[in-house]
Amino acid sequence: MEIINRVARMSSISAKILANELKIGLVSTMGAIHPGHLSLIQAAHRMTDVVVVSIFVNRLQFLTEEEYRNYPRDLTKDFDLLSGEKVDYLFTPPENEMYPEGFSTYVQVEDFGRKLPGLYQSTYYRGMTTSVVKMIHIVKPSFIFFGHKDGMQGAILRKMIRDLNINTEVVVTPVARDASGLAYAARNVFLTEPQKAAAAVIQRGIQAAERAIEAGEGSARKIIKQITEVIESESQALLEYAAVVDPGNLEPMSKIRRPALIAVGARIGNTSLNDSLLLE
Amino acid sequence: MEIINRVARMSSISAKILANELKIGLVSTMGAIHPGHLSLIQAAHRMTDVVVVSIFVNRLQFLTEEEYRNYPRDLTKDFDLLSGEKVDYLFTPPENEMYPEGFSTYVQVEDFGRKLPGLYQSTYYRGMTTSVVKMIHIVKPSFIFFGHKDGMQGAILRKMIRDLNINTEVVVTPVARDASGLAYAARNVFLTEPQKAAAAVIQRGIQAAERAIEAGEGSARKIIKQITEVIESESQALLEYAAVVDPGNLEPMSKIRRPALIAVGARIGNTSLNDSLLLE
Repeated sequence: MEIINRVARMSSISAKILANELKIGLVSTMGAIHPGHLSLIQAAHRMTDVVVVSIFVNRLQFLTEEEYRNYPRDLTKDFDLLSGEKVDYLFTPPENEMYPEGFSTYVQVEDFGRKLPGLYQSTYYRGMTTSVVKMIHIVKPSFIFFGHKDGMQGAILRKMIRDLNINTEVVVTPVARDASGLAYAARNVFLTEPQKAAAAVIQRGIQAAERAIEAGEGSARKIIKQITEVIESESQALLEYAAVVDPGNLEPMSKIRRPALIAVGARIGNTSLNDSLLLE
Repeated sequence: MEIINRVARMSSISAKILANELKIGLVSTMGAIHPGHLSLIQAAHRMTDVVVVSIFVNRLQFLTEEEYRNYPRDLTKDFDLLSGEKVDYLFTPPENEMYPEGFSTYVQVEDFGRKLPGLYQSTYYRGMTTSVVKMIHIVKPSFIFFGHKDGMQGAILRKMIRDLNINTEVVVTPVARDASGLAYAARNVFLTEPQKAAAAVIQRGIQAAERAIEAGEGSARKIIKQITEVIESESQALLEYAAVVDPGNLEPMSKIRRPALIAVGARIGNTSLNDSLLLE
């Protein structure tokens, strides 16, 4: 695994790989590598010739400076975890190369997910799309891999890529979970053990929705009510959103039809967690 | 010259050209081909292996539907003019492929040129940058060529390309002019002969500024005053803006230092015209 921390060098290595007609797979992360990332790397290996993992804590994706500062960073531990996988390049660009002084160009997907109250955070998504476009231009991947935990992310990136004619495909893989059912996430490190146990309620809410839909429930309102009841049954959990949307355009559904994306967010203590399920 | 009117086909032809390690030059136009475009094509030939000219009247760059509808379109005449040059591909994508229903992703350079009163038209520039990013993703040029007539355009595109790590270089060539000194522009077709004669005052204003600076005038305020006086000497011309800016960041200068971009816009009848000069 070669570590690259210069944008220009990564860009020129990627150009050489493409000139040899090899396909690049990019797993774009903010570090705090966990088993969810490792499953993305394995998927990248199955689909591409050269696997690049990027670690960049993207300031634009944080709503407050404090959240940005507190985000877990441990490059040594990340490196150890990645060493167990076949990663060809680890790309860790410095902040001042990704966002040099005076940086001011943004990529924004508008009118998408806006009807999802409490969910659509314009600043967050603008930061995410801007950073992903930069990463795609630098690393030039044929495929970019994301987990399904934040189901909105994949849908928004697919829309952006289609609208801007970007020659990269988004691959969204199933959520990786620990034994309790909790989706792996960087911010799980902020949870105490009792909070971790409580957080498993999020997946239980989604599973209840899935079972109800499979049993024939067709009303999105009733499904959302059911998720809400499950989450509220756990006193440490505060529901932030529950939505059933068309994954193609993020429009909320009233009658359930497939494909449907069930997305749930809940706060456990001070930590916001996301989970989602795609019913195909 | 092969005409291509499908986005997917242009994209796949460009990929094949790159796989053969040839460089593509893109002259991105809205049609109404004039000698200014032809000089861009000639520059593209000198610098690249394969020249692509795109013709696409970009709705996002117009402030009103009426302006968009009235923009001159004559593909047959454009084709004749281009046939005299060595153009490899003419790319004429249809509106519904460039902006399919539900299109909503935009690229915007913020905080750039905002201090230029009356000049910075956010909608116009957002439409221009969004369309150029799409064209770059489809055509994959090493170099994209623009004339210096709208001096701001080149500066904004360079900033965008730097911020988003796009692997394309912007080449800005000197303004092509008719015998009277009027810069060639698509919208010159809207001018009557007397208006054309009057419009030459714009270049005279810029030349007066250039002479004054070369004679040692160091105050941007005085230079702008001088341009204003020249333009106002022509009763058919209405000054829209006159600015002396740093071409790197479009900040207005108070003391002249090189490089300096002198940009002037004036309305002749109902037609807004631009011209600019870079003092290196």
